[in-house]
Formats: sequence, C-alpha cells, structure tokens
Amino acid sequence: MSDALTPDRLTASQASAKLRDRSLTSETLVRACLDRIAERDPAVRAWVYVDAEAAMRQAREADKQPARSALHGIPVGIKDMIDTADMPTTHNSPIYTGNRPSLDASVVSILRSAGAVILGKTDTTEFAAAGRPAGTRNPFDVTRTSGGSSAGSAAAVGDCQVPLALGTQTGGSTIRPASFCGAFALKPTWGVVSREGIKIYSLTLDTLGLYARSVDDLDMLCDVYAIHDDAAPKPVTAKGARIALCRSPFWDSATEGTPEAMAHAAEAFRRAGAEVTELELPASFAPLGEMQRVVMHAEGRAAFLNLARGVPHLLHDDFHSRVENRDGYSRRNLLDAYDQAALCRIEFDRIAAGYDAVLTPSAPGIAPEGNTAGDAVFNRMWTLLHVPCVNLPGFIGPHGMPVGVTLTSPRFTDRQLLAVAKALAPTLV
Amino acid sequence: MSDALTPDRLTASQASAKLRDRSLTSETLVRACLDRIAERDPAVRAWVYVDAEAAMRQAREADKQPARSALHGIPVGIKDMIDTADMPTTHNSPIYTGNRPSLDASVVSILRSAGAVILGKTDTTEFAAAGRPAGTRNPFDVTRTSGGSSAGSAAAVGDCQVPLALGTQTGGSTIRPASFCGAFALKPTWGVVSREGIKIYSLTLDTLGLYARSVDDLDMLCDVYAIHDDAAPKPVTAKGARIALCRSPFWDSATEGTPEAMAHAAEAFRRAGAEVTELELPASFAPLGEMQRVVMHAEGRAAFLNLARGVPHLLHDDFHSRVENRDGYSRRNLLDAYDQAALCRIEFDRIAAGYDAVLTPSAPGIAPEGNTAGDAVFNRMWTLLHVPCVNLPGFIGPHGMPVGVTLTSPRFTDRQLLAVAKALAPTLV
Repeated sequence: MSDALTPDRLTASQASAKLRDRSLTSETLVRACLDRIAERDPAVRAWVYVDAEAAMRQAREADKQPARSALHGIPVGIKDMIDTADMPTTHNSPIYTGNRPSLDASVVSILRSAGAVILGKTDTTEFAAAGRPAGTRNPFDVTRTSGGSSAGSAAAVGDCQVPLALGTQTGGSTIRPASFCGAFALKPTWGVVSREGIKIYSLTLDTLGLYARSVDDLDMLCDVYAIHDDAAPKPVTAKGARIALCRSPFWDSATEGTPEAMAHAAEAFRRAGAEVTELELPASFAPLGEMQRVVMHAEGRAAFLNLARGVPHLLHDDFHSRVENRDGYSRRNLLDAYDQAALCRIEFDRIAAGYDAVLTPSAPGIAPEGNTAGDAVFNRMWTLLHVPCVNLPGFIGPHGMPVGVTLTSPRFTDRQLLAVAKALAPTLV
Repeated sequence: MSDALTPDRLTASQASAKLRDRSLTSETLVRACLDRIAERDPAVRAWVYVDAEAAMRQAREADKQPARSALHGIPVGIKDMIDTADMPTTHNSPIYTGNRPSLDASVVSILRSAGAVILGKTDTTEFAAAGRPAGTRNPFDVTRTSGGSSAGSAAAVGDCQVPLALGTQTGGSTIRPASFCGAFALKPTWGVVSREGIKIYSLTLDTLGLYARSVDDLDMLCDVYAIHDDAAPKPVTAKGARIALCRSPFWDSATEGTPEAMAHAAEAFRRAGAEVTELELPASFAPLGEMQRVVMHAEGRAAFLNLARGVPHLLHDDFHSRVENRDGYSRRNLLDAYDQAALCRIEFDRIAAGYDAVLTPSAPGIAPEGNTAGDAVFNRMWTLLHVPCVNLPGFIGPHGMPVGVTLTSPRFTDRQLLAVAKALAPTLV
C-alpha cells in the first residue's frame, strides 16, 4: 500500500465516506492511527495516554453498530484537560496524577453518542495556562515546539496520527499550535459548546477548540456539536469574496514567516478573484491584547484558589502568582477590560459584517525552537472578542515550517466562516 | 438548656467565637445540627443526603486540629448540584442517581481547607433550572414552598438546621428562597468565585450563592472565598446612608407581602436616619428581564445537549425544550441580550455609584403554596447585570411568612455592600 493511501492519511470526511460504503472499517482505521502513533510518538510525544486495546475495542464495537453520525467509527484525540471517564485526566499537573473523573466532559460524551472512538489523551501546557510546558515536539522539526497549550492535539492531527482532536483556547491555545503544526482548526464563538468537564482558567475566555485536516472535517464536528448560525451558510466562491486584510494592532510582533504568509494569502485570494482590502481597526481595539491578559489573570485568581489553599506545595508558582495577583490588577482594571471588550464586540460585529471574512495572522511566525508555548499576541484580542477563528494551513515558510493564517467573522457566524474557509483554503496550497 | 441557647441556633460567627474560646466544640455543634435535622427533616425535607457518622468524624477531627480559619469546625450544607467527593451529587436528576464525583467542587475544596465540616447535600430544583421541583417545604409553613432552586439550602439555614449553606443563582435561585425562608444570602459579583464542579446551566448567569443567618456570617464566607473589593469597606452607619429605592421595571409583578416589605424597609431605613430616594432606571433596563431568559434558555441549548444525545429517555422534557430551542430564540436574540446587558452593566455601575446601596424587591411576595420554585421576576435583571445582591430578612408579612428585600450595588463592591447591609439589617427587625 503506498504511503498516500494508508488510512491514517485520510481526513475524517474521507474516512467517513469509506466507512459508510464499507471500503474501510473503524478497526483498520484505528489500527493505522495506532501504528502511526507507535512510529512517531517517541519523537513527537503528542500523547500522554493511549490504551491501544481499549481503542481497538471501541473500533470493533463501532463496526458492529449502525452508523450514529458521520463521525461513527472515527478516532478523536482529547486534550488532557478535558475529562474522560475511562482514561486519566491530569492537566499536566502533579496534583492530578492518576485522576480518574467519574464522568466524561460534555464534549466527550457527545462524541461517544455520535459513535466516535476516543483514541487517547494529548499533552497540554499545565492547566492549559502556564507552569509546566507540554513535552510535545513539532512534527515538522522536533527541535521546535508544536505550540501550546493544545500541543499534543495540534501535533497529532498535523502529523496524521489522528484525523480529529479537541483542544481549548484561552489566549491562543488552539489557533497558534494549529499554525505551527499545519493543521486546520476552529475556535468557535464563545459559549456555543458546553465547557462542562473542561478545567477552568478564565470563564470569559476559555473556549473549546477543534482540530482537523480539512474544512469539511471542521464542518462535521460542528454538526455533531450543534454549532449553527441563524441561517444556513450562503454559497461562497473565492471569486468575488470580500476579504478584509487586518494586520491587527499587533503587527509589530510579526517575525519570521508571518509577513510572508499574510502576503501569500492576500495574493492567493486575489489571484482567485477575491477582493482583498486593507482594514485598520479603530484605536479602541489597541488595548484589547493587554486587556485579554487582565481578564485571564484576574479570573485565574479564582480558578486556582482551591489548589493554592489545598495543595500549595504541588501547585506551580505561576498559579500562585495568579492567586496572589502578583500582576497587581485591580477589580477596576478587570471591569475596564470587560466593558471595553463588550463595546468592541458590538463594533467588530458591525465592521466584519461588511466582509465575507477578516484575514489576520495566526501566530508571530514559524514555531520557535524548544518547547515554549509561543506568543499569543495575534490571538488574544480575537479570543476576548468571542468571535469564531479558523486557522488555514497551506503556506510553508522559512526552514520548511508551516505558517497558518486566521479567518475570522462576527459572533455566531461560525458556519458561514467555514463556508468561506472552504472556498479559500485551496488557494493557499 | 433553653431553646435560645442550643448551639444550632447560633450564627456561624457566634459559634466560631465559642469554638475559638473553647466554650463549644465542633462535635457538640454538629450534633445539635444533626438533632435539629432529625427533628425537622421529616416535615421540611431540606436534605437529600446526610451521613451523620461522617459529619461527626469531621467534627471530631476539627476539634483535634488548630483552627485553620474562622470557619474551622463550622458545619455547612451544600446544594446537591455542587460536586462532593465523599457524597453523591445528583442534581435532582435520575441521570445522576448515585453519581459520585471523583473531586470536590472548588468551593467545597476551599471549605475543607478552611476546616469547615461538610454536613450534607441539600435539595434542589432539577439541574437548578426546571424539570423536577425540590421536595423541600417552607419551614415557616410546610404547605408552602421554600422556593427554588436552592430550596434545601435556604430552608435548612432559615430553620436553624445548619448555620451556613451554599446555593447557586442563574435566575433568582439564591435570593428568592432566602426571601421565602427568612435567611440572609449573598449572590456575589459574577465570576469572583470559581464555578468548577458546579453543574452548568448558563455560563453568563450561573453564580455561587451564600446562605447564613447574619451579615457577619456572609462576611466570614467572603473572607474564605477571597471575595474582596479594590479597597477595604468604608465605615457605614444607617444614619446618613444614601439608599436608592428602586421598585424596578417589574413592580407590577409584586403581590402579597412585597409592597409591604419595601415600604417597611424604606420607612425603617429613614427612621434610622438614612436618605431614601426613589430611583427609576432608564428605559434601556426594561427588556433585561426577558433578555435574562433569552440568555438562560439559549445557553441551556449547549448545557444539556450531551444528556439529550446520551440519555434522552431520562432527561426531563423541560431540558429537551432548551436543547431543541422550542422558544425559537435566534443567535441574534442572544447577541442582542449579551450586548444590551453589557451596556446596562456600565450604566448601572455608574448610577449605583451615587448611592450606598440600591433597595429592590427579593421576590414578588410571600412563598406560594405548593412546591413551585416561585417567580424570579425581581432577580433576573440583577443576575444578568452581574452585580452583588444581598437578601435582608426581618420583615414578617401576611400569614406570618417572611419577606426579604434586596440590597444591590455596582460590580465588585460585594464587601462594601455587606458593610451597608450590616448597618441596615438591624433596622428591619
């Protein structure tokens, strides 16, 4: 069998079609993913828990049953800060070593009801926040990071170890590692999916993240999670699409790869017939990057208080710092951030409604060396604005490393945004 | 021992002082509460789980240790939608019968670190939302409701079965039952306490609620949960206090008891030397009651999706209604509610900053007959505004039933509000 045809290389939609027409079994698909993991995990280290036997049991069970959804029989990786009843959930914290939740997180339970195979748990920055970095390496160059905090999910999907995975985003934890690892990803509109059973850092910011290797696959996941806009998506073609090129107030932070990726995307979209026009956001948006940090750290005071009180010696100093408010953020600072964000949400929805999508960077540049999470400077504002963000891969930058770009749009237009992404993604390759 | 002196009648602060000077042991205190529960629970039915042996073990353990906080050795009741590792957590749903979480909720863990005794679980409306009512009756008249959804916590505290209890509020689930049962309660500013391990209904609205029998006790709980304003509370006296009398846009819903309670409070505050002036909120606040319902029901779509998919036959039709969006609320309706609420938060903080507190109803009137949760019409707007709300008891209305009033103030002025409440509460009795 040639490499291109092994089942681990299939997108979830491709695999789903083959499962439905019986040219593939879940058992074969899951076995191929487990083989790929066995081959690659010693170098990439995306996974913290895989029970191959249990995964194969789920796959064989799926093969016996009528399909319950398009995801039936498809393996999915779960970031290890999302509860699973049949696997440990450690948040990469020594406090949670061996922790076995009694219940699945809502997002895992929904996957099981859809017939998906829960393949294993992927590595994460401690509490998806700070402290201990993930051990994951970038599949394109293992001397570089896969990004954080959804380090393992992005790497596993980008490296064809699993077609789909769940992550989370509070700053840039879904989109940035997707950019570093060449994966498609969607951070949906805030609140559209339940966060029950996902460890809390910041209620205002924490959002589920979805990883896949095609826009079709992100659409499949949206179907399963009942992520719908008010109206069905309007048809979109690259030709005539109105794209706002928004370098954002943080453009000075762009480094190696991102200026090229943005220029490449703008040029590719134009060549395909899109109207790409420059968008400079009003000055009121400039403080939102710092304000996202205020919200995250200030809400982190409450999030880690129980651990600071109960198991202080096991809690990383980064989290004591949040609880003790070493940043010195006042409640007034937090209110200013809440209120400015609320006003800018209204304003951004209004501005972005004039375009089919807003094009903006996914990360400062290519994945840095080491195992740093990377800088969330280009993600923070969008997370705080609660808008959907899609990472589109396809551009290869310096050192042969992938660099993605983000498409975003008004709140609760996730499916329309995916329709735009689907029209534009092929132009980047 | 005269009835007035039995330890179950002590407020938490009174008990704490006696525990510190060794004139009382936690064992004696907890035994007195268990005795009171044994006497009263057949009629009031506040508790769904009490393990007397385990509670006594915790009390004896507390007596052996040096005090870890003012709450050391004090028993606390926990609403049965808040996770406890050593007791079942059922949310009053057949889906969760026998559910044993592997971890305590953050708010329970913090109580344990403070040395408190977790006495048992109190009854709740199903998922603190709808569906099955709590079985709890009003301790003042068991033919009447104790209110929902924190039915058991309000009744147990009001009836001297436990000095402190935890509830939650999404609509009026903390303040309304406090009003019905003659308890003090604080719904703190949204987000100031972690909601980890508390079942989700609506992220934008769900807030921990605190029950006690004095303002001092609410202050003690705030200390333990690190609920602090930017500045230490300024001294307040009833004399000279500036109180806004706000009948709210929902005054037409007031029934038996609330007009009298509001008139009584205004008169009592004035007699004590406060300046009580009428406050009519701008017209932009009028839609907030309905908008709270939009947010709650729309966010409930995501909250119960996993149960609708996984165990549809065990899920009450009220929750299928949320998931299926039988109200027909659009995403646009939800955004309008989010954005209007955000603008009104800014406006209310500005308006309320001109007063020491805003006086407003806690409920439409006395507790109705039966076991209905009651109408949250006077609470919905404040929950959506994220502001702290204190229920002050003291007034006895028709049929000998208690009717409370609410004091509220700008976001993150919880401790200042308690200082005002402390100055004004004695005038109501």
